[in-house]
Formats: sequence, structure tokens, C-alpha cells
Amino acid sequence: MKTITASPSPLLCPPKNEFRDAMSLLGAAVNVITTDGPLGRAGFTASAVCSVTDEPPTLLVCLNRSSSAYAAFAQTHVLCVNVLGAGQQDIANRFGGKTPMAERFEGLNWSLGHQGAPVLQEASVSFECHITQRTETGTHDVLFCQVRRIVRPDATQAGLIYFDRRYHELAA
Amino acid sequence: MKTITASPSPLLCPPKNEFRDAMSLLGAAVNVITTDGPLGRAGFTASAVCSVTDEPPTLLVCLNRSSSAYAAFAQTHVLCVNVLGAGQQDIANRFGGKTPMAERFEGLNWSLGHQGAPVLQEASVSFECHITQRTETGTHDVLFCQVRRIVRPDATQAGLIYFDRRYHELAA
Repeated sequence: MKTITASPSPLLCPPKNEFRDAMSLLGAAVNVITTDGPLGRAGFTASAVCSVTDEPPTLLVCLNRSSSAYAAFAQTHVLCVNVLGAGQQDIANRFGGKTPMAERFEGLNWSLGHQGAPVLQEASVSFECHITQRTETGTHDVLFCQVRRIVRPDATQAGLIYFDRRYHELAA
Repeated sequence: MKTITASPSPLLCPPKNEFRDAMSLLGAAVNVITTDGPLGRAGFTASAVCSVTDEPPTLLVCLNRSSSAYAAFAQTHVLCVNVLGAGQQDIANRFGGKTPMAERFEGLNWSLGHQGAPVLQEASVSFECHITQRTETGTHDVLFCQVRRIVRPDATQAGLIYFDRRYHELAA
């Protein structure tokens, strides 16, 4: 005998591609999320990052469990959110594509964060974090991250936003 | 006898204002989040909104528990994320300021969403949602919202981003 579990009615939610198309109209900053742990250095590009509260300073990062970086982040409690600026589209593409993990880090300037995660020197601002909570939602984990240290250059860089399926630069 | 609970070491986290300054460099879309329930219509401006997963289509919204809109959203299971476009800074300011709740809705075109929350006709795109989970983090609640219906005009509008403490417009 076969047990068939009914799937939720397809009428309940819009189709995936319609959701993705609509979400492309929600502009977002472009970030490279890095860590270092038992599996070595890893990083991925994420636009699903947002501020949660300033008491204590906390942000969240959404991570696809099928991402090539997932295993590394599952085995560590630290990460660094490196916010990219104008002109850094190539870094976003490199950390968002199929480039092997070690190669992603080559040719860029990294420092070792106080929490142990790599800090990108060229970033507009970097948030060194401790992961305090993980919530599984559908295909993704939402990582709640307490900010322990902020690294930023003296001058404010122009911004980088992904909107309507392309990059846009913003004057600082 | 007095019991003194030690506060976490101030060295653990950067100060609130330093976190806010740094977060201003993480550009974000500007959204008006609306609901309607036992306490009537309510809405607030939020930039802390992001996509979580497309299986099922889910986004999240961060809401300050001290916000004037909080009580209304605590008593409902529906909300609509109305993404603002270029030229709608006045709507963002109105829903983000001290304007009494009922007045915020005046003079704009609303339709009643299928889930019961007000849908802003002028928005770039609106996501009608069912709140499936609430996670308390510091001063804020994170609302996980399953998207049930998407409303968008035929033409793509130019975008609106808040970055470096001011609005920026993006060509579509």
C-alpha cells in the first residue's frame, strides 16, 4: 500500500517564477558573507541580509541549504557580512557563481577578523558576527547574527544595489 | 539585599549608534507594510524586509515592538508588503513618522487584498501575505510571511532605495 501525502493546494501561493520576478523589484544591497572553520574559508554573495535590532546589534542572513557554501557555514558560529560598493560587481559575481571556493578569495585583500572570519578590506563596511540562532524556512536557513565588531574605511564609498535583475550604483 | 544582574560586557558589541551608522551603508528598498484587523487599518514604513525562500514563496519583515503599529499587527495574521517606487518618498515619510494611523491612508488608492490587508495601488509591487511565524529578537519581532498573492502594474516603475540616510532613485 502506498501512502500519498497531499501537497498544499497550488492555488494558495503564486508560482515560483512569478515570486522571483516580483522580488526582483525589491532592490537590495549586495554582500559577500564569509566564514572560516573546520572546512576552511567559504563565502557567498547574498542580497537577503537585513538589520533586525540594535539591542543587541543584530542582523540576519538567509542561506540556501543547497548552496556550495552551506556545509562550511553549518559548522561554524562566526561570519562576516562584507557590504560591497560601486565597482565591485566582479566580486559579487565571483562569490555568487560556480567559482571553486578557494579561488573566490584570490587576488583580494583579506584580514583576519577578531571572530575568525575573513574581512574584505575593500568592502564599504564589514560586520563581524556571532551566529546566535538558525531558523529553517523552506529551502533556506535564516541565520540571526549578533554583531561583535564593525570595520569600515574612513571615506564612505558609493553604494551597490541589485534591482530589476541588474546592478545599480548609488552616490554616497 | 540587592541582586545585581551583570550586564553583558560592553566590549562584546559595538555601541548602538555605531551599528546604526554602519547599517546606513546597507542600502535597502522602502516598503509600506499594511494590515487590517480587530484594531482597524494600520501601516508602517520598513526597509528591513527580505526574501527568504521561493518554496513556498516567503519573505520576512522586522517590526519594532515599540512601534505605534505593533498592536494592530500583533492581532492579525495577514499583511501586505507594498514596495514603493521613485517619487513616493512622501508616502514613506508619512508611514514612517508620527502621522496618526487613520490619516496615513488618506488620499491614496487602496484596494482590499484577497487576504484582507490593504493593497496600495500606486506600489511598484505588492505581496499579500499570511504571517506563519513570529520570532522575537531584541526590540523587534521578525514576521515570516508566506506570499499568497502578488499585485503589480503592467509597467515596471523606477525603484526607491534608502542608502546613506537619504533616498535614491533607480532607473527600471
